[in-house]
Amino acid sequence: MRIKSLGLENVRAVEWIDTTQEIRLIDQRLIPFEISFTNLSTTLEVNDAIKTMVVRGAPAIGVTAAYGMVLAVKETLDFPPEKRFYVIKEKYDELITTRPTAVDLENCARKVLDVAIESNYSIEKALKSAQNITEEILTQCKQIGIEGERIIEDNDSILTHCHAGALATVDYGTALAPIHRAHNNGKNLIVFVDETRPRLQGAKITAWELSENGINHHIITDNMAAHFMSEGRIKKVILGADRCLLDGSIVNKIGTLNVAIIAKHYDIPFYSAFPWSTIDYNSESAEDVEIEYRDENEVKYVKINKEEILIANDSSPALNPAFDITPQNLITGYITPKGVIDRLELKEYIEKERKN
Amino acid sequence: MRIKSLGLENVRAVEWIDTTQEIRLIDQRLIPFEISFTNLSTTLEVNDAIKTMVVRGAPAIGVTAAYGMVLAVKETLDFPPEKRFYVIKEKYDELITTRPTAVDLENCARKVLDVAIESNYSIEKALKSAQNITEEILTQCKQIGIEGERIIEDNDSILTHCHAGALATVDYGTALAPIHRAHNNGKNLIVFVDETRPRLQGAKITAWELSENGINHHIITDNMAAHFMSEGRIKKVILGADRCLLDGSIVNKIGTLNVAIIAKHYDIPFYSAFPWSTIDYNSESAEDVEIEYRDENEVKYVKINKEEILIANDSSPALNPAFDITPQNLITGYITPKGVIDRLELKEYIEKERKN
Repeated sequence: MRIKSLGLENVRAVEWIDTTQEIRLIDQRLIPFEISFTNLSTTLEVNDAIKTMVVRGAPAIGVTAAYGMVLAVKETLDFPPEKRFYVIKEKYDELITTRPTAVDLENCARKVLDVAIESNYSIEKALKSAQNITEEILTQCKQIGIEGERIIEDNDSILTHCHAGALATVDYGTALAPIHRAHNNGKNLIVFVDETRPRLQGAKITAWELSENGINHHIITDNMAAHFMSEGRIKKVILGADRCLLDGSIVNKIGTLNVAIIAKHYDIPFYSAFPWSTIDYNSESAEDVEIEYRDENEVKYVKINKEEILIANDSSPALNPAFDITPQNLITGYITPKGVIDRLELKEYIEKERKN
Repeated sequence: MRIKSLGLENVRAVEWIDTTQEIRLIDQRLIPFEISFTNLSTTLEVNDAIKTMVVRGAPAIGVTAAYGMVLAVKETLDFPPEKRFYVIKEKYDELITTRPTAVDLENCARKVLDVAIESNYSIEKALKSAQNITEEILTQCKQIGIEGERIIEDNDSILTHCHAGALATVDYGTALAPIHRAHNNGKNLIVFVDETRPRLQGAKITAWELSENGINHHIITDNMAAHFMSEGRIKKVILGADRCLLDGSIVNKIGTLNVAIIAKHYDIPFYSAFPWSTIDYNSESAEDVEIEYRDENEVKYVKINKEEILIANDSSPALNPAFDITPQNLITGYITPKGVIDRLELKEYIEKERKN
């Protein structure tokens, strides 16, 4: 599935434009109200786009960062060879701190950096590496759709949180890939879409993407899950992950842990879908993760396009942790490119990869 | 505590104005952005004010309904005695269907109706009855504050959901009464305030009320509770109830069940505070309750004063159940005017009352 829904077939959330040597992003902050593109031609612009969430979704951030490293190589063309490594490394360090949670960012940028160094800073090779990363993520997301569809039945009802669809992963999506596929294969579905405060990625982006593909869905506020689960109206939970830790816990959008605990209470299966680049080989467990806190005004104001409205008592402080950590014992299965696997199978995969 | 915070000492959320024979309400929809009063002089205006949530909070709705019945008696002065009962009864029936959940509404209106019938439609007696109801609720809420404070320790951190403060109960509050009292007695507190989508009563009214009384607090979105509980930063939950069923379950603002399940998961005590008028003697358990569904646009739009902004994908439907039902096995204790009691003590009280 390309983002046909935009009326712009073959357009992707993140694309490298060969003619201008730029990265073209769909500005995700404006969806569904406006379809607008931003072209990035410098690493500074890339950093800014990631920080301000023009691009969001762990795999889409990863791909943007990969192309960002291509720009870093390009920007240092005029540097003397002995200095070049340090300047590129500095740009890399800045890039990977733009969002602290999505490990895809670091994983993808690192790969391009390694290729650049090995190839003595060949722009062509760096670009080829970024393109390979993109193709790899697309292949994996497509495969996640195929594997994940096996757990979706006809007349299923699925809760999802935040947005892990095509825009978040360049194309296909992670959590939404199996849902799109099940729908396209004729299965009747209802998706409960958590609006996902404070930034409303569910109400805005997921709802739009499901709507465009003609999938039955309801937007609900984040505090309604227990009610609908208690009524037996939600049969499973499928969502993405921003980072998967080595013990199998996942770092994902704030509210994921709420949903996981409530699903467990009602014995409802809870699945997290992600490509391999989401595994963080440097973090064993929750203790190794620092949660990203964002500006309190994301909670106190609603910002839609150019409008910004105070929705809370002005003199009250707000807290805005952007992610939470769901422990592995609340996760029924991981929807990966190699199938829906449990914690032990994930552990086996990780151990094998570590040896390589 | 009167609502001193308004800069209008001795003003209450709901008041009977003797000189004009009107009910004066603070328009709770505008708090904290504007302090505005509405005077109601007809039963139609009363019905409308309850429906549109100018007045909200189960006890405050109850008191408004009690005075509404006084207006019903007044409006039927010119009716022939044999017809008067039917007309008043019709107004009563309309009044009690304005909000389907808060049982205080029916309990309070019924009391004034009974007095009116017994006294051969004496306005004075009906008014006296409504005033007694108000005083009784105030006495009970004050007592809830005294009793509830016993479970609040110095340096406590408490999560509350929706708004169960002074504006919701004419004065003092239910859930907030012990919190205000603990603070006024010098205890150091932090309150986590669920913003309470879709209508944001937490972010707007609770945050404002705590702010005005100088109580430390943070607004959080409804999906953050599990994160802060997992970090040990929330030690107890105190919230109100719109209805307490005979089996001890509570019907309360949507999201209450989410919080209760998460609190149970982390072994965090969960308390519901309410006056006796909140007990519904006609509902044994959840099966007897129909959940009020409100307009989906409350979810899809944010409405602040005169502004209304679409915050979701326009073509997506939303669901908007206004309440959920928390079963008694998730409730640690009930904060009542007679102390903090458990399920068995609540059952004993209910059985004693039923015999009377």
